Order: sequence, then structure tokens, then C-alpha cells
Amino acid sequence: MNTIPGIETKLDRLASRRTALYNRDFLLTWEQTDTEIASVLDVVDILEAMYAQNLSARVFDTGLAVSLFRDQSTRTRFSFASATNLLGLTVSDLDETKSQIAHGETTRETANMISFLTETVGIRDDMFIHEGHKYMTEFAAALDDGYREGVLLQRPSVINLQCDYDHPTQSLADLQHLIRTFGGVENLRGKKIAMTWAYSPSYGKPLSVPQGIITLMTRFGMDVALAHPEGYDLLPDTVKVAERHAEKSGGKFRKVSSMAEAFEGADIVYPKSWAPFHVMEQRTKLLREKRSGELAALEKEALANNAKFMDWECNDKLMRGTRDGRALYMHCLPADITDVSCKNGEVSASVFDKYRLATYREASHKPFVIAAMILLTRFADPVAALRSTIGRGESRRAG
Amino acid sequence: MNTIPGIETKLDRLASRRTALYNRDFLLTWEQTDTEIASVLDVVDILEAMYAQNLSARVFDTGLAVSLFRDQSTRTRFSFASATNLLGLTVSDLDETKSQIAHGETTRETANMISFLTETVGIRDDMFIHEGHKYMTEFAAALDDGYREGVLLQRPSVINLQCDYDHPTQSLADLQHLIRTFGGVENLRGKKIAMTWAYSPSYGKPLSVPQGIITLMTRFGMDVALAHPEGYDLLPDTVKVAERHAEKSGGKFRKVSSMAEAFEGADIVYPKSWAPFHVMEQRTKLLREKRSGELAALEKEALANNAKFMDWECNDKLMRGTRDGRALYMHCLPADITDVSCKNGEVSASVFDKYRLATYREASHKPFVIAAMILLTRFADPVAALRSTIGRGESRRAG
Amino acid sequence: MNTIPGIETKLDRLASRRTALYNRDFLLTWEQTDTEIASVLDVVDILEAMYAQNLSARVFDTGLAVSLFRDQSTRTRFSFASATNLLGLTVSDLDETKSQIAHGETTRETANMISFLTETVGIRDDMFIHEGHKYMTEFAAALDDGYREGVLLQRPSVINLQCDYDHPTQSLADLQHLIRTFGGVENLRGKKIAMTWAYSPSYGKPLSVPQGIITLMTRFGMDVALAHPEGYDLLPDTVKVAERHAEKSGGKFRKVSSMAEAFEGADIVYPKSWAPFHVMEQRTKLLREKRSGELAALEKEALANNAKFMDWECNDKLMRGTRDGRALYMHCLPADITDVSCKNGEVSASVFDKYRLATYREASHKPFVIAAMILLTRFADPVAALRSTIGRGESRRAG
Repeated sequence: MNTIPGIETKLDRLASRRTALYNRDFLLTWEQTDTEIASVLDVVDILEAMYAQNLSARVFDTGLAVSLFRDQSTRTRFSFASATNLLGLTVSDLDETKSQIAHGETTRETANMISFLTETVGIRDDMFIHEGHKYMTEFAAALDDGYREGVLLQRPSVINLQCDYDHPTQSLADLQHLIRTFGGVENLRGKKIAMTWAYSPSYGKPLSVPQGIITLMTRFGMDVALAHPEGYDLLPDTVKVAERHAEKSGGKFRKVSSMAEAFEGADIVYPKSWAPFHVMEQRTKLLREKRSGELAALEKEALANNAKFMDWECNDKLMRGTRDGRALYMHCLPADITDVSCKNGEVSASVFDKYRLATYREASHKPFVIAAMILLTRFADPVAALRSTIGRGESRRAG
Repeated sequence: MNTIPGIETKLDRLASRRTALYNRDFLLTWEQTDTEIASVLDVVDILEAMYAQNLSARVFDTGLAVSLFRDQSTRTRFSFASATNLLGLTVSDLDETKSQIAHGETTRETANMISFLTETVGIRDDMFIHEGHKYMTEFAAALDDGYREGVLLQRPSVINLQCDYDHPTQSLADLQHLIRTFGGVENLRGKKIAMTWAYSPSYGKPLSVPQGIITLMTRFGMDVALAHPEGYDLLPDTVKVAERHAEKSGGKFRKVSSMAEAFEGADIVYPKSWAPFHVMEQRTKLLREKRSGELAALEKEALANNAKFMDWECNDKLMRGTRDGRALYMHCLPADITDVSCKNGEVSASVFDKYRLATYREASHKPFVIAAMILLTRFADPVAALRSTIGRGESRRAG
Repeated sequence: MNTIPGIETKLDRLASRRTALYNRDFLLTWEQTDTEIASVLDVVDILEAMYAQNLSARVFDTGLAVSLFRDQSTRTRFSFASATNLLGLTVSDLDETKSQIAHGETTRETANMISFLTETVGIRDDMFIHEGHKYMTEFAAALDDGYREGVLLQRPSVINLQCDYDHPTQSLADLQHLIRTFGGVENLRGKKIAMTWAYSPSYGKPLSVPQGIITLMTRFGMDVALAHPEGYDLLPDTVKVAERHAEKSGGKFRKVSSMAEAFEGADIVYPKSWAPFHVMEQRTKLLREKRSGELAALEKEALANNAKFMDWECNDKLMRGTRDGRALYMHCLPADITDVSCKNGEVSASVFDKYRLATYREASHKPFVIAAMILLTRFADPVAALRSTIGRGESRRAG
């Protein structure tokens, strides 16, 4: 009666997959099996279809979703709020300015104190290199401990809302966008994607997006070209993951030395600014030690260095080098747009305008990706949970 | 079975009205037809009756309600939180101190980014004259765009929680208060209401309340007298709207030169401080240009000018001039009360005390007004939505 | 069908108790009858059992829960968020930095303005001695007034989330922890509990926890020993309450002069820092008058005085004096742990580590205690409300 043909097929496909996500976390895509990644995409598909058909996906009647943002955020805040609300959870924000989280001991205590009736904890911690992922794993270990010892009656999952290594909710939303654009994950095989650095008048942007893209897209047989000016290397470990994935999937991973070279024949381009990781390391050290004079000097030097590469701008001329001159332009937003948000930026207004709505659609998948991660980490049998919720026959909105 | 006689009659009346509110916004009352205003009042009535009878009005199973406050607020924050909660939505606050909204481009992007699973956006933007309403219309246009292009699967409504022109959730709550007090909207015809300036030791209060009152009450055949000291004019356009409405409804709109004259024979008095709009224009300019020295000078000058009109205080002596000496005193709260919240204020403690509970009742309608606006803008068939919710037979509280 | 054997028995027991909590507040445990305290414990038990059995306790379909924190808080914020979410309410935070609450008049107005659709108001106000409880009673009186006059359609309850006198949600969570640890409330009779001051390198900690413990535990026939250095007296009125309770219940209340003496043969120890109340009085006065120079001097003097009692540390040596050398260690958290969170603290790392998980379990009851207070103050027939909710057969989480 409440079975929806299209959705039933997707649920059957999901039911056929074996994952070990239940009672675990979603921190780095490369820690997850191909089946687990496929399951996330399945659930995104199911939740998007349910939403479009006005079916409630409220699998939780009550429960908290804790958010912890160690960096400013609008998009991810709203994505997390939307995702948790979709499933029936209520966000409670852990504002560290109103508490103290200083050392390992207290992380352990905080993790337990906020989790008595909590189902998931979304954390954004991307400012300090070598810190964000570490913090999330400590937090997760404390939850394991509390759950094992019976302090917690359920084991909340930790969802990485961006760390120093990866940005899985972004890269999976990007992947879903590619699947929709190219008509299926199988169609991504052999497609060329250029993940390239681009100029921006700011110097401390995280590396997690490019790292997330090269490690994820290489799993699907794509031909991934990474380009950046000398000195703007990504974390070597993530480059190794990309190489391994490409080899295993029959895709390619290449490093090239200019935006033009990366764009050559590309089906997709993803031009985006990031900081060299040695600058991020230096910045982390100076911030920790509150050496503000040296921080100012570092910023000045880094910006001066950036300025040498102002020609790394995605514009019409460069776009003409892509496949048929019309590669898909991608960005995690907000983009630095030349003559719009700044004098010289990552992308010309002309290119951005052509793809503006496409980038919005790209972003639209993020709430569903987060919801999928929560569903898979919090239900031993996510298919049963969804079927039971569909069976309730509740509409998302009345009438 | 779950049909409630009194409520059924109201639903039938609502069903008979044709409005074009679905998938639109509620920004200025004078943009809405008489039928649309009547529909809001109907829904307020229905929701208040349902609340009193412990019937759940949760027409949404999930969904976000975004709030954006560009000015401090307690009352309106809680009214919005209450209204959205009543309907089943969850508030997510867009805190601009944690993001950047600078130019048209970014308004468009922000509007889409926060709206993927959002049903309504409440905005308060009353600080800068000629800015608030403009911002809301830009925001709404961005939502139209995103919805038309398929970026958004639903088109959230924008609810004006106070702008530089109008304060519709306040004026409609005030109207509902008058209807309850005088026993029906038809009884308002011919009633005299004095909307008058009053002294307060602050200089930058918005004009939206008096503008909202003169434009709305003239639609119901009321006799509206506006009084203020020389130089404290309202926006000329809103005065023209009031004149037009009075003419059409068979009511009156007069400008008089003193509080005493306005109070003469009045059934209702609404004494409230506001800033001259030329001061607001100057203030907007100086704030935008961060000319803090001149701002201080402007404040000093404006306060000195205010002080010339310290006798514009609603007190027992003036109240004696109203009909039978007992006009209904109204205020949007908080009032500046002489010898209570300040040395000299808008109203004497003696008058305020007599009407304190009445002003609280006046305020009590605001959550229901906001809920009514959301319901009418978000449901093509609000009657069906309410009937389906009533049919669920869920109590607001168990037992 | 949805009757759960264990829970049914507990519901029957609760049904047999007569309380006057409905439409009232929960401010001080010593204002409540023994039956009322027993009812809170019953409901805690029921809600914990329902949670463990995945039964939804959402007795409210909609409704607001207002929180007002006049002091920083993580634990209590999350407990309140969890408790209200468990029952189906949504938290709306009253942030006084975004409004003005100055004098009695405005407390009355604010209380009404935020309560039109509100079921409960949780207040933490523990910074100023002789102020917190006073504020809560004023707030509650305003709600009585508004409800009686028909401004409010329901009368929200005020829940004391910590005041200058008592911390009932903490002390009742502590009591539930003792009941669980010792296998029943009847087993607490005759048990020795040492409530003792302990050294901490901070000087302004509230007195509400020790006051809450001595007044509550003496009601259950426990043998309560209070120890603190000279000058660190609790409020005399609370000591009198403890004496009266001990006498009535057949328990004991003793003041002793050292931690060692209090620990002698103790079954339970609760070593915790607090400020002398005369220092708190002085501090309140200086803070109110913004005399920052004298505040700094007071802090210096108070810390110097604290430092004389650095040997008031709960360590292995002192623990050996307790019953069989293994009394239960308790703390409201966070504890000041020697060589972990500070150089010299309330407890040695060795003792704390042994009881770390126990203190987490102690804290885990707080959300359920708050939920119990809300349920009992907001439902004339809480058993019927719970039975009706259980009868709905809704799971807390699907599947």
C-alpha cells in the first residue's frame, strides 16, 4: 500500500549490500569499502526520492544530534540541521566558547556528557592541520568506551563535517552530482576530471576538498588530473591513496603542472584555492603558540606567494581547452569570483554564471549525504528502518 | 469523529475564500487583497481554537524554518519559534556574524543554500531605512529563481518579521486583539483609533509599527487619527496608502497636531515613539559609511529634539479625553513607562498598569498570526491540510 | 499489547501517589513532600526503562521549552535539551544578551511574552547569592498571574537548573545513582555519606551542590557528615533543613572538622570545592556595583585562603579510611583533578580514574530527572499521559 515502486527497487539494492557502518563513524571515505560508499549513494537516492514524493523519512521519534563547529560555517550548518531534521533528530549545538575542552581527559568526558540521549555528533575541525581528524578519532574512542561500559545506552556516530584530511559530505555530494549529471555511476568510468588549484586573495583555505576529490573520484575509474603551482602540495598520504585507488579501479591519477594542462580534454573541472600544507603546518604552530606577529608575517608572505599565480583563474579561454569546450564546472561554494566577490579570483564571472545553477544543485545533495551517513551508522538494518517509516504512511507535509 | 463543530464552521468559511498566497511571501499587508487579510484572520482564529482544544496543528512532519534577525529581538524570536513549532517545523537560525552576506550575488546564493529542506524564512531587517524591504524582495526573487530552475524542490515563503516599511505580524496581531475586544471585525467600522507619537529617551525606533497600523486599520472602516510633532513624519508612501484605504473602506484618515486632539473621543489609543524618517535616512547613511563621530552628533541632536516633546506622554489626564474616558490603550511592547523603565516615557505607570494584561493579550496573537502566514503561503489547500491534521486525531499533549 | 510488564508495575506505583506538582514549579527539593520526591524517582525509573526498551516518551506533540542560562553550562544545557526532546518539546533559548531584563516589571513581562506556547522554563541562576531563587520565584509568580488572567492558555513550570540555594536536578540524579548502586532506596538507610569541601584553584564555586546533598540525603535515613575548613560555611538555613530532615527520617546529620574525619567509615564520599558564602555575598555586592578593583582583591584574598587548605584532597590515603577502603566516590563534574586539570585539585588522578565511569553514570540520570520534573509539573495525570503515549506504540527509533 505504501510501497513505492521506484523506491522499492532501490531498497532491494541497498538490502543486498553488506556494510560494517552500524555503530561506527564516517570520518574518511578511504577508510570505507566500495560497498559502504555504494550504500551511502543508495540511501541518498532513496531519501531524495522520498523527499520528492512527500514521504516522511522520520526514522527517529526523538533523539539529539550534536553539532560541534570549530570553524565558521553556514552551508554545512544548514546541511546538518536539514539532514537531522529530515530523520527526526533535533540539533543541539556544543558551543566551546561556553565550556572548556582542553586535553584528552576532557574530550573523553565531554563526549560522554553530551551523548546520553544523542544519536549522532557532527564535527567540523579543519583549521589546524594534523589536529582535526585526530580529535574526531579521540572523540569516537571515548564514545566506544562509554558505550562498552554501559554509560551510554546507544553509541552515537561521529560524522566528519570537514577535517584536515577529508571532507566526505562534500565529496560524496559532488559524486552524487556527477552521477546525476552523467546518468549513472557506471558512466563516470574514463571521464577526465581536473582538480586544480586556483588563485584567491586569501591564504588559509583547507586542503580537505581537493584531498577528498582525488581520493574519492579515483575509485570510480575516472581519469583524475591534479594541478597546482609548485609548493602547493597536498598531504602526501592522500596522494598515495589516490594513486592506489586509480590503480585498483582501472582509472588514472596524474599530477600535471598547469591549469591548462589539467583542463585539456577534461569532462569536469574543479578549480579551487587551497593553502600549501607546509604553510598550514606553520600556521597551526603559530596559532597554538599565539605568536601573532609571526602569524601576520606568514600571512603576508603566503599572500605574496599566492599573488604570483594570479593567472590560475578558470575563465572562458581555459574552458575552451576542455572536451568540446564545455566541461562541467564544479565548486563547493562560495567561490571567489573575479570582479564580483573580489578583484581577482578562482573563476571569471562569465564561467561561474554559466554554471551557477549547476553548483547550487551540486550543493543540494549534501543534506541527503549527511542523512545517509547517519542512517547507515545508526541502524543495524537501515532498510527495515526505512520500510517501517514508509509503512507508517506519514506525509512530510499534510494535505 | 475528529470534526470539531466550531472549528468546522471556521474551516468552511476559510474554504470559501480565494487567495493567491500559495508559494508566495507575506511582506506588506497593503500588497495583500482584503480576502487574503481575511484568510489570515480566519486561520488565526482556527489555530487559536485548536490550541485551546488541545488539538495538534502539526501540518509538517519535518522541515526547517529559517530565522534571520538583523536586529535584536526577544518577542519576535519567541513568536516565530512558537509559530513554527506549532506547525511542526524546526527553527534554524542564520547568524550573519558567522557568514558573509554582502552583495546581491551572495544574497541569491545564501537564499538557495539554506533552503534545500526549508519551508519558510522569517526575516527581521528594520535598522536601515530603504533597505529592509528591498532585501526581503531580493531574497524572495532568489527563491523564485531557485524553485523555477529545480534547485529547490519546494519554494519557502519569506515572512516579514519587521522591515523598514511594515510590521505585518504586529499589526495583524493588533487587529485580532481589536476584533476580540470589540466582538467582531464588523464592529470596528467607525471606531476611532489614535495612532500617535510619544516621547521616549531613545532616538532610533523604527517607523514600521505606526506605518503598519495606519495602513491596516483604514481598511476596516475605522477612523484613524495620526498625530506626531512636526518633523516626525512617516514615509509619505505609507500615508498615501492609508488615505486610499480609508476612502475605499468608507473609513477616515486624518492627521492632527497633538496627542490630545487625536485622543479626543477615541475608542482606541496607540501612543508609541518613533524616529523621524529623515533622521533614519541620515543614520543609515552614517552607519553604512561608519562615520561614528557624526553618528554620535546625530544621536545627540535627535535626542535633544525629542526632549522638546516630553509632554507627549499618554497619562490619565489625556486618557480622560477619550470616549467615556476609557479608550483601549495598545502597545507593541516593551513600552517606555515613566518612572518605571525610564524617567520620562511614552506612558504613565498608572495608565500602563490598567492595560498591562490587555497588552499581553494583544501580544499573545502574534505566534498564531505568524503560523497563519506560513500555513497560507505553504499550502495550496490550507483547509485540506488542517482537516487532514485534525483527522489524525493527535492531541497537542497526551492524556 | 503495548503494556510492558516492568513498566506497568512502576506506573501502578506512581498512580498510587498523590502530589501537588501539577501547574507548579520544581525549585527546591525541601519544598516538596516525600511523596513528591518519590514520584520524581518513579518517573525517572519509568523513563529510563522506556528509553532502554526503545519506547517513545513523546507526551507532547508540539510545545516550547525555554532555557535561560545566567551562567555558562555544557552539562546542564545538554541535559535540558535531552530531557525536553525526549518528551517532544523544542528548546528555545532566552539569551539575555539579546534583550533587557532589569527590574521586577520586566521580569513579569518577559515571563509572559515567552510563554504563550511554552510548557516549561528551565532557569540557571547561581552566580549571585540571594538572587537566583528570588528571581525564579518572581518569574513563577508572573506565570501564575498570566495564567490566572487568561493571558496564558497553559501555565509553564519553572525548573530550577541550579540556583544559589539548591541544585535539585543534580541532587536527584545523585540520589538515583545511589539507589542504583545500593540496590534500592531502602538500602540507603544508615549509609554514611561524607559531603566535604575540597581544594580547588578557583574561588567562586556555587554552594548549591553541597546544600542540595545535605538537605536531600538526610531525608532517607542516611548518616550525613559535612566537613569544611573554618569559614566555608553553607547557608545556615540549609543546614537547619538538613538537621530537621535527619531527625524526621531517623538519619543523622553531623558537622565534622576534617575530610579524614568525615571519610571515617563512609560508604560514600562527595568531595567538592565551594566558596564561603560570605565571600559570595561580598562578590555579589562588588559585581552588582561593578567595583572591579575590589573584585580582583577579593579573588586574590579568597584564593590565598583556599591555598591554606590544599591538603583537602581526596586521595588514596584518605580513601583507605572509608568503609573497607572502598567508599563510592561521587562528583557532579567536571572535577578538578590533581596533575590532570590543575596542579593541585579536589581529587587525585588515581582515585578519580577508579571512579570515572561511575561519575559518568551518576551524570547520566540528569536528563531523566529533568524530564520527570517536567512531566509531573505539566500533567494533572502523568500516568495517563505515559499510558496514552505507550499505547501509541511508537518506537523511539524505527525498525
